[in-house]
Amino acid sequence: MKFSVTVTLKKDVLDPQGKVVSQTLRNMGIDNLNQVRQGKFFEIDLKEQDQSKAESQVKQMCEKLLVNQIIEDFKINKI
Amino acid sequence: MKFSVTVTLKKDVLDPQGKVVSQTLRNMGIDNLNQVRQGKFFEIDLKEQDQSKAESQVKQMCEKLLVNQIIEDFKINKI
Repeated sequence: MKFSVTVTLKKDVLDPQGKVVSQTLRNMGIDNLNQVRQGKFFEIDLKEQDQSKAESQVKQMCEKLLVNQIIEDFKINKI
Repeated sequence: MKFSVTVTLKKDVLDPQGKVVSQTLRNMGIDNLNQVRQGKFFEIDLKEQDQSKAESQVKQMCEKLLVNQIIEDFKINKI
């Protein structure tokens, strides 16, 4: 069973990486850019048939390792 | 208009970051893990009303800056 996990910085946290990307895009001539924010993406493949069990396991992985919940949010989707 | 861009390594490309994450998760006691693959995530906010125009702009950003198409795939979604 496969899940995707998207980790993004919370709204009020500064995102220097995203700032660099958006500045670079502007320098390349894109003039209608509001903002770019960068995050992380994980594709997690589990040997588990029970969806709710698998989902709670992925949530646990996020909370324990993948996500710093002080500054980041995460979203889990089945794929 | 906001878009999300997910950048993942192509299937046959080695993913050392993902390997480290999956090994760490196994060491933490998760024993039913098949695989973890890591990617990048961008949230791009454009001042543009025309959706198809905005989408083609985001595609261009991916091709010119955000994605190395030799080893990476990307997916664009409106959010």
